[in-house]
Amino acid sequence: MTLHADAAHPDLVSVGVPTHWYNLAAELDQPIPPHLHPGTKEPVGPDDLAALFPSGLIAQEVSTEPYIEIPEVVRDIYSMWRPAPLIRARRFEQALNTGAHIYVKYEGVSPVGSHKTNSAVAQAYYNSVDGVRRLTTETGAGQWGSALSFAGAQFGLEVEVWQVRASYESKPYRGHLIRTYGGTVHSSPSNLTESGRAILAAHPDTTGSLGMAVSEAVEVAAANADTRYALGSVLNHVVLHQSVIGLEAVAQLAAVEPDGADVVFGCAGGGSNLAGLAFPFLREKIHGRSNPKVIAAEPAACPSITQGEYRYDHGDVAGLTPLLKMHTLGMDFVPDPIHAGGLRYHGMAPALSHTVELGLVEGIAVGQHDAFSAGVLFARTQGIVPAPESTHAIAAAAAHVADDPNEQVVVIGLSGHGQLDLPAYAEFLDGNF
Amino acid sequence: MTLHADAAHPDLVSVGVPTHWYNLAAELDQPIPPHLHPGTKEPVGPDDLAALFPSGLIAQEVSTEPYIEIPEVVRDIYSMWRPAPLIRARRFEQALNTGAHIYVKYEGVSPVGSHKTNSAVAQAYYNSVDGVRRLTTETGAGQWGSALSFAGAQFGLEVEVWQVRASYESKPYRGHLIRTYGGTVHSSPSNLTESGRAILAAHPDTTGSLGMAVSEAVEVAAANADTRYALGSVLNHVVLHQSVIGLEAVAQLAAVEPDGADVVFGCAGGGSNLAGLAFPFLREKIHGRSNPKVIAAEPAACPSITQGEYRYDHGDVAGLTPLLKMHTLGMDFVPDPIHAGGLRYHGMAPALSHTVELGLVEGIAVGQHDAFSAGVLFARTQGIVPAPESTHAIAAAAAHVADDPNEQVVVIGLSGHGQLDLPAYAEFLDGNF
Repeated sequence: MTLHADAAHPDLVSVGVPTHWYNLAAELDQPIPPHLHPGTKEPVGPDDLAALFPSGLIAQEVSTEPYIEIPEVVRDIYSMWRPAPLIRARRFEQALNTGAHIYVKYEGVSPVGSHKTNSAVAQAYYNSVDGVRRLTTETGAGQWGSALSFAGAQFGLEVEVWQVRASYESKPYRGHLIRTYGGTVHSSPSNLTESGRAILAAHPDTTGSLGMAVSEAVEVAAANADTRYALGSVLNHVVLHQSVIGLEAVAQLAAVEPDGADVVFGCAGGGSNLAGLAFPFLREKIHGRSNPKVIAAEPAACPSITQGEYRYDHGDVAGLTPLLKMHTLGMDFVPDPIHAGGLRYHGMAPALSHTVELGLVEGIAVGQHDAFSAGVLFARTQGIVPAPESTHAIAAAAAHVADDPNEQVVVIGLSGHGQLDLPAYAEFLDGNF
Repeated sequence: MTLHADAAHPDLVSVGVPTHWYNLAAELDQPIPPHLHPGTKEPVGPDDLAALFPSGLIAQEVSTEPYIEIPEVVRDIYSMWRPAPLIRARRFEQALNTGAHIYVKYEGVSPVGSHKTNSAVAQAYYNSVDGVRRLTTETGAGQWGSALSFAGAQFGLEVEVWQVRASYESKPYRGHLIRTYGGTVHSSPSNLTESGRAILAAHPDTTGSLGMAVSEAVEVAAANADTRYALGSVLNHVVLHQSVIGLEAVAQLAAVEPDGADVVFGCAGGGSNLAGLAFPFLREKIHGRSNPKVIAAEPAACPSITQGEYRYDHGDVAGLTPLLKMHTLGMDFVPDPIHAGGLRYHGMAPALSHTVELGLVEGIAVGQHDAFSAGVLFARTQGIVPAPESTHAIAAAAAHVADDPNEQVVVIGLSGHGQLDLPAYAEFLDGNF
């Protein structure tokens, strides 16, 4: 497969690992509002970001090119599990009594079991190019932390992860996974950082939040010249890397459904999973080749699109990050400790928020019980136990098509498997939520 | 791909889901010694087995056909994850400083994360054809129990699993997985059966064994007309079903290595994983198309091939099963509770034992520390965290090729992933073994 750097061509050929990432923003009439410096409130420049990110990622953060070539070594690592399968979920269709053709794009085949590796490998690569020795990051359920730990091992980088306490305590397996890849993991808030100590002093019993964990990781990166910070979602360069999901899915779907997708569902926490899947489908829409609806399924406990405000806000709880124009519940919002730890983020990627404002994407909030009901049905019919995050997209799609004979083509982003989240399934089966 | 029912043809074409299972025994000059009735010591007939197994599986147990067609519905379910990938492990090769070309046949892509689904789906199908309502089985680490639970869900069968206590207590996630698919799981020995109660009375603190769990599951199946028993390894029909692993691997390898494999490594507990991978490679050897060595990597704690006797023995601890001619440590052997729960079985598949006697397969015992060392190296280079069972094959292969410039072609059976075994990795990283 060759993905030409030419947005006028549909790239609907047989599927391999994409050669380029796709940057939807470059094809929109209105640009994404810039990130602002937290002090000056002026748009941040490359120099402002250099303390946190390597040059290659900073360039991608503000790129106006629609296609950016994937470095050979990154593509080589991708090829260890990519292209990820697009699976027709016929048994799930039968159980839903629907005429819809349901396809799941399954990212659980990656080494760590989720889509997070797509950006982790790219970020580790660009950091290694700049001579960085250590990466710090936050993680919720642990998908991102384990992905970065794996990626760091590929490029000889140390990886240090602050994991939200609620997940650190209830899901120890992903901490083990981080360590198996050679990384280290701390419960957040920790007493290793000023941010963490301040939060613990004020709220010693906090269950933690992604915003708190971001503050800790950013603080350590900013204070050490050989250390940079890696963010698992939200930012434009992360959304860019995840576009391999949708690029593959568009091509895979074209081989079996010539008219393309009618509706695309993905779960949205920070937004990169959904944007990665959906933006190549929106490319098809923009270029008039198909007309898909895109639905962002977010948790009812943390509904930034459906309940948040669209305004500038910090990405972390301590206000260390740039101000991002996004749908936000407020930087100090602490959601309930739902099992979908990866969806417990107060904001939504500026790139995705922008497409919501343009009417290209709409949000829907899904309750945890409904999400797991759909997840169990999916497991029993298709075998794959979905990540708790992914169950939100499955539930939204199931509600959309159940008992409807309409032969619409539905694509669901199955962002990862839930084998390390099985205690959550056990609690659901025990009737605890 | 079409796998012709013609042993004279190499089937080295592009890879899809095999259409037939392969039965090596039908191509050997000496037949596998028959199973014997535990009372009469005469070869068992179909009637003797009918209380435990459905007719389709009994026919396969004694089949003399080299190829048996895979039923359409079974093949359809296989296609949800098959063909499983054959991955060139270049980063692992580099770390080993070897000239060998190392390929791993990765069964972890199946819904439950292991090869066990290959036989589980087939067994559930043949039971459903005979009108069976419920299946009972044993499981060690839980790979087989969860596979059968998944398979039961596909055919509307209840599944009841007795899991070896050591694994039930140390690895609760696979019990959750069994329940997620709709099955039920008990710690074995349990007080639900006569066998279990007798063992508990004599050894209340036992860590359990596969032999004990077999006795419990067999007892319940034999006592209930609507219930049959399903065994996850050892028997000829299980070995047959697992041949899809090797059939795919031979064809996949032929596309990149025209001379085929030089050495094939697989872990061996009950033997079906290794036999499933290796027997199609032995077909190539028998027909003079290549000359692979086959190495069975077994745990030093349960070394049935390298330390056991080749004689008739029971498959379970209570003596309820037929007598099987196999390498055995004795039906009452209780291995240490090593993390590779799936390798804690006292005997070895008669079909595999037979090929050992014929000089087609040789055994090697691997210690747990060496196995996990190799597993961690594999995870850090290739991303995939191997199942503890699979680490034994990886360790044996690594020892065989390390620092050797010889460009030999090595195939390793990666029977499953170890994401549900991560506490074992944590213990290893903590230096506990």
